[in-house]
Amino acid sequence: MTYNPPSDVMIYDTTLRDGEQTPGVTITTDEKITIAEKLDKLGVDVIELGFPAASIGEQKTFKEVTKLGLTSQISGLARTVKKDIDIAIDSDADYIHTFIGTSPLHRDYKLKMSKEEILDKAVTSVEYIKDHGITAEFSCEDATRTELDYRLEVYGAVQEAKVDKINVPDTVGVTYPVKMNELISNLMEEIHVPISVHCHNDFGLAVANSLAAIEAGAQQAQCTINGLGERAGNASLEEIVMSLHKFYGIHTNINAKLLVNTSETVSRITGVKMPPNKAIVGDNAFAHEAGIHVQGVLANSQTYEAMSPEEVGHKRKIVLGKLTGANAVKAKLDEYHINLNDEQFNELVNKIKSLGDTGKNITDIDFRSIAEAIQGKPTEERIKLLGMSVMTGDSTLPTATVKLDIDGEIKYRAETGVGPVDAVIKAIQSLVKEVVNIELVEYHVEGITGGTNALGEVFVITADEDGNKATGRSTSEDIVKASIDAVLSSTNKLLMLRE
Amino acid sequence: MTYNPPSDVMIYDTTLRDGEQTPGVTITTDEKITIAEKLDKLGVDVIELGFPAASIGEQKTFKEVTKLGLTSQISGLARTVKKDIDIAIDSDADYIHTFIGTSPLHRDYKLKMSKEEILDKAVTSVEYIKDHGITAEFSCEDATRTELDYRLEVYGAVQEAKVDKINVPDTVGVTYPVKMNELISNLMEEIHVPISVHCHNDFGLAVANSLAAIEAGAQQAQCTINGLGERAGNASLEEIVMSLHKFYGIHTNINAKLLVNTSETVSRITGVKMPPNKAIVGDNAFAHEAGIHVQGVLANSQTYEAMSPEEVGHKRKIVLGKLTGANAVKAKLDEYHINLNDEQFNELVNKIKSLGDTGKNITDIDFRSIAEAIQGKPTEERIKLLGMSVMTGDSTLPTATVKLDIDGEIKYRAETGVGPVDAVIKAIQSLVKEVVNIELVEYHVEGITGGTNALGEVFVITADEDGNKATGRSTSEDIVKASIDAVLSSTNKLLMLRE
Repeated sequence: MTYNPPSDVMIYDTTLRDGEQTPGVTITTDEKITIAEKLDKLGVDVIELGFPAASIGEQKTFKEVTKLGLTSQISGLARTVKKDIDIAIDSDADYIHTFIGTSPLHRDYKLKMSKEEILDKAVTSVEYIKDHGITAEFSCEDATRTELDYRLEVYGAVQEAKVDKINVPDTVGVTYPVKMNELISNLMEEIHVPISVHCHNDFGLAVANSLAAIEAGAQQAQCTINGLGERAGNASLEEIVMSLHKFYGIHTNINAKLLVNTSETVSRITGVKMPPNKAIVGDNAFAHEAGIHVQGVLANSQTYEAMSPEEVGHKRKIVLGKLTGANAVKAKLDEYHINLNDEQFNELVNKIKSLGDTGKNITDIDFRSIAEAIQGKPTEERIKLLGMSVMTGDSTLPTATVKLDIDGEIKYRAETGVGPVDAVIKAIQSLVKEVVNIELVEYHVEGITGGTNALGEVFVITADEDGNKATGRSTSEDIVKASIDAVLSSTNKLLMLRE
Repeated sequence: MTYNPPSDVMIYDTTLRDGEQTPGVTITTDEKITIAEKLDKLGVDVIELGFPAASIGEQKTFKEVTKLGLTSQISGLARTVKKDIDIAIDSDADYIHTFIGTSPLHRDYKLKMSKEEILDKAVTSVEYIKDHGITAEFSCEDATRTELDYRLEVYGAVQEAKVDKINVPDTVGVTYPVKMNELISNLMEEIHVPISVHCHNDFGLAVANSLAAIEAGAQQAQCTINGLGERAGNASLEEIVMSLHKFYGIHTNINAKLLVNTSETVSRITGVKMPPNKAIVGDNAFAHEAGIHVQGVLANSQTYEAMSPEEVGHKRKIVLGKLTGANAVKAKLDEYHINLNDEQFNELVNKIKSLGDTGKNITDIDFRSIAEAIQGKPTEERIKLLGMSVMTGDSTLPTATVKLDIDGEIKYRAETGVGPVDAVIKAIQSLVKEVVNIELVEYHVEGITGGTNALGEVFVITADEDGNKATGRSTSEDIVKASIDAVLSSTNKLLMLRE
């Protein structure tokens, strides 16, 4: 392994090009503008905005984004084809990334061209871009499966044609760190322009391969937010950047505090949700549940955290469940100023573990009601559902009538809404107004899969005027009933909080 | 970097222990049995089933799973505490994995113990396990942040106490491949029992670190399905196994063809959905959208695939969108035996790209209707909704009346169901029975977030007796209306397919 890393690494973000090639993902012009502005603030050196020749919409996007005057350079992808390059130039790209397949598979099956023809197209295209005074980056597509000599020959030839950077794509994600390090070391002997890498994650090694290339001297990483991209995606920007900063002390222009926010924006726009266990930006990246871990984190967060959540714009979470230990329970009780004697404390810990054993998650509000119940506080519900009826249809306004028992008084009311659930919730809001003004902060239906008789789970958060919040959850075959139960359960909890 | 990999690597799966520590995830006894049986079939050498001392439920799970007589060994986690080990033994564990923190942070903040006390607990615990004739694996928790000399001292001492394997946890995910390789090389000089690694993914390097340890001679990887685990999770079993098989030609007992199925089971039970770009098992791992890629894959799948999808039990997908090229369209037309002239073909390609530009995904059925419309086939819908009304309540059976125009004839019918959606769908099924017998194969409500007036998206698949299937999708503020529209749209498509 060669160890010759640069002191600075450039970040070339391709979320809007390779990331958009994520099957099923399409990003509109307005959305590309939103993401480009976020990437610019984040500090990426180059934004690969798209492939101008792909569609008229893409060309419009380039014109709109280049007008914004961002600090990041705006790059467009182009095959080594005059038409593609002309379209990129006409779309006002600052920077053109041109590529052609060089591996035997790409030469023989996709391009059906000889080595000489490919070399010629590469050189001609780079010269053509440079003749227009535009920054040129060149990739041998499938570089990692290209013969060593031929790869060096092509990169050497574009270097002579005055390319600004060369990029080494592991197009199909078929290399591993030791091999990637060797490949870059070999290029470093002949190539004197900055070397970039572009790694795919088919074996989960994209980040490690990018780092191995940088250890050998590569000065740029092509990567994407959330690791989006073709198939298993690209190297994840957030993972590369934090590794460079933390392990190698290598500088990038990235403001790491914006990583979580940028990831959330990309996730929302593309519809590709990251799993909770996604490194750096996942919901659980700084969450702790097991007793042993919570105990350590409470004593010194470094015990179980590789970096502080604030460094990347994240937050620490302590989660209760069957693996919860006494330390986490103690910490939560202190947070809510609840005092329990030893017997009550043990009862609480056992109750939480047994709820956990049955597969339930325990929210902070659940925790508090259980603890207060054990302490002997009455927990009777102040609002009870006595009856409801709902009508809807295409010529009927969705209408709901709800009958409640509020502190022993019987009340009923009808309301209309945009749909049956909306009508029912409005009726409840009107009815409870005298006791508490509730606002529905969040209404979430868990995806239902199965038949129309499958169970639907509704999760809500309600808030009062003082900013108190409570959650409610209910499951039923009837989504209207589940919605009512969830809202009433959270309203009752809110009332408990206000006492 | 030392390069001295073994010819065989053992896979120690900790999905049911570290994976269950994923905050928010709890796995019940029955679910642990289901997953353990899958892991056994998959061929993992050791299943870490849980932490018996954590709860009574956990102890019951051990007794039930050990009774099954699986080929995989069943391991239980235990602190280096007599009580934990006794509980593990009483729970019938075949194998005990005991651990104690050895890094300065763990010694000073969590354990508040001296180096000598820790060493003593490690040795006493291993001896105690071995006295009971049980396989013992020992971990220095936070090994990667433990002083080199002390780490070697502790592992050396448990080796003398006749431990069967030692495990090196990168508990907080703070190492990188070169360092991990060095660490293992150093241990290999003194340790002669098999060395295992356990890597966390806080920087996205868990798989690469595991492989770097194996390159130095480690003979076992601890890992989890889907990379579940504390915080950013553990090294993903599927990525480690495929890298070992493909890059190093190292043998494991894993039957790779079962990887996708096992991943799906774990995902369903834990509720932790993998993103489409998850390596090996993600929905997009073998999906292709961009024109350039589709062209390559159609010519020779290796052009853009690192392995064949069948090897891991997956399927290839060609997705249409704004980046679709003429090749993909041509292939789809051939699949459906639709002949278009050049003008019609260009119209179709442009139509698909422009739908893509507006952010729409194009399903196969959409593609077919667009292509047939261009070809001049009439696409009038045979079934139209003329009216519907729905009543529900807590003392009313959910009842729906639906009025349809079927091939010009007006028909109506009322039905009851478990909820309003169920009632409405039953009414439609009864009404269309004369034209086609539809069965609802899938009914899926996309998670709705926002207010109760947020848009809900319903996706359905209906099938007829001949096995034809069609999808329908609709969005409305009223989930009942969205459900009707989606079912009618898919039924109309089914009728088109039958013509």
